[in-house]
Amino acid sequence: MRIDVAFLPVELNQELSDKTVVVIDVLRASSTIVTALENGARSVIPVESVEDAKRIAHEFGSSVLLGGERGGLKIDGFDLGNSPLEYTRSKVAGKDLVFTTTNGTRAIHAARTAKRLIIAAFLNMASAVGKCAGIGKDMVIVCSGRCGTFSLEDSVCAGAFIDKACEMIGAELVLLDSAVAARQLYRAYGDDFLRVFRLSEHGRILESLGMHRDLEFCASQNVFSSVPVFHDGALTLD
Amino acid sequence: MRIDVAFLPVELNQELSDKTVVVIDVLRASSTIVTALENGARSVIPVESVEDAKRIAHEFGSSVLLGGERGGLKIDGFDLGNSPLEYTRSKVAGKDLVFTTTNGTRAIHAARTAKRLIIAAFLNMASAVGKCAGIGKDMVIVCSGRCGTFSLEDSVCAGAFIDKACEMIGAELVLLDSAVAARQLYRAYGDDFLRVFRLSEHGRILESLGMHRDLEFCASQNVFSSVPVFHDGALTLD
Repeated sequence: MRIDVAFLPVELNQELSDKTVVVIDVLRASSTIVTALENGARSVIPVESVEDAKRIAHEFGSSVLLGGERGGLKIDGFDLGNSPLEYTRSKVAGKDLVFTTTNGTRAIHAARTAKRLIIAAFLNMASAVGKCAGIGKDMVIVCSGRCGTFSLEDSVCAGAFIDKACEMIGAELVLLDSAVAARQLYRAYGDDFLRVFRLSEHGRILESLGMHRDLEFCASQNVFSSVPVFHDGALTLD
Repeated sequence: MRIDVAFLPVELNQELSDKTVVVIDVLRASSTIVTALENGARSVIPVESVEDAKRIAHEFGSSVLLGGERGGLKIDGFDLGNSPLEYTRSKVAGKDLVFTTTNGTRAIHAARTAKRLIIAAFLNMASAVGKCAGIGKDMVIVCSGRCGTFSLEDSVCAGAFIDKACEMIGAELVLLDSAVAARQLYRAYGDDFLRVFRLSEHGRILESLGMHRDLEFCASQNVFSSVPVFHDGALTLD
């Protein structure tokens, strides 16, 4: 079983039809998707553009909520932004969420030809690794990055995933160069993910926008067991 | 002064016309180019395809040598392969080299719109950093990678460059997330670059092809002071 990392979606130039792809956008799309499904949302439908999100939500009717961000902020006319803290059980249980963000939903789109596509964040790390180990296929972790540039926090999250996968799967797991590098990066910081956020470009921007509580929440490890899986255009807990 | 890393040429999606781009393909194109110019070659002309290399060499006439590789091995009908050890003074002094490799010459091509494009390897690290510090522009380090995939050794070399640049330039140097990650990666291994080669996919392939001496040579740090600069389609010592 091999594990590879695409540090940006643009690196995804390989055949994915027999692979498990793990999409990470730890600040904040993957953290928010995990939280929404953990809190009872029926599905999250990732959409690339704001226009498509509005059109799809209109087709769905009353059980739907519109969520997402541009520039880190809630989109005009949307029900929810991209803070996982907004996606409480009272708001999202039983709802379908049409969701568009700058980086995360685009990474999902880039990886949609995968045999299995799952969403990971620090919040559901151990469960996500367990799910991939159970599937038993070669894995590609896709870091969403930030507007086409490398993201420190996604890469450290990829490294944490790989470290956990090595522990769980053992010698059968072959790390490609990118996976070796991501794991080293994780080891350089250890589990102090809040520190990583504060060092990262994106983390500092969110902090400057007053989103300190989001950072604290997204830095929490293994608080959820939900592993979102992409199927027929929607993320659900299968 | 900012410093960014593209871990693969495909990540180069930014305006480069006011930037210094540093191309790294430590195994082996950038090491070989540095060695050839250090040993008196008049120029190295990086070319993407074997056909173009042959055509250009034909136009040049008698002072030219054809060099490069495909699959790590010398190309049929070429004078030299891609081992820096072949590029001795007796062979290359006063010659123009038309040079094509799988990854390095393609990375140079992808970065050709840069204000300044220079070539770095472990061999000329301190001089390359010194040159970039002297130019004083924002920098982008481009790792050539291997057939479109992340390369551990290029990324560690980028990290070594950044570490040295921090030392030389100080607080004026702003590291983007990618540069922070590359520097951490370098620090994880320290200056034992032969160990990095032996851990890396590409290093192991070259070792299996019997190119152990190349690895030892490419792992040497600061043995040359030449810094190849790209101008009008050719690399020279300006």
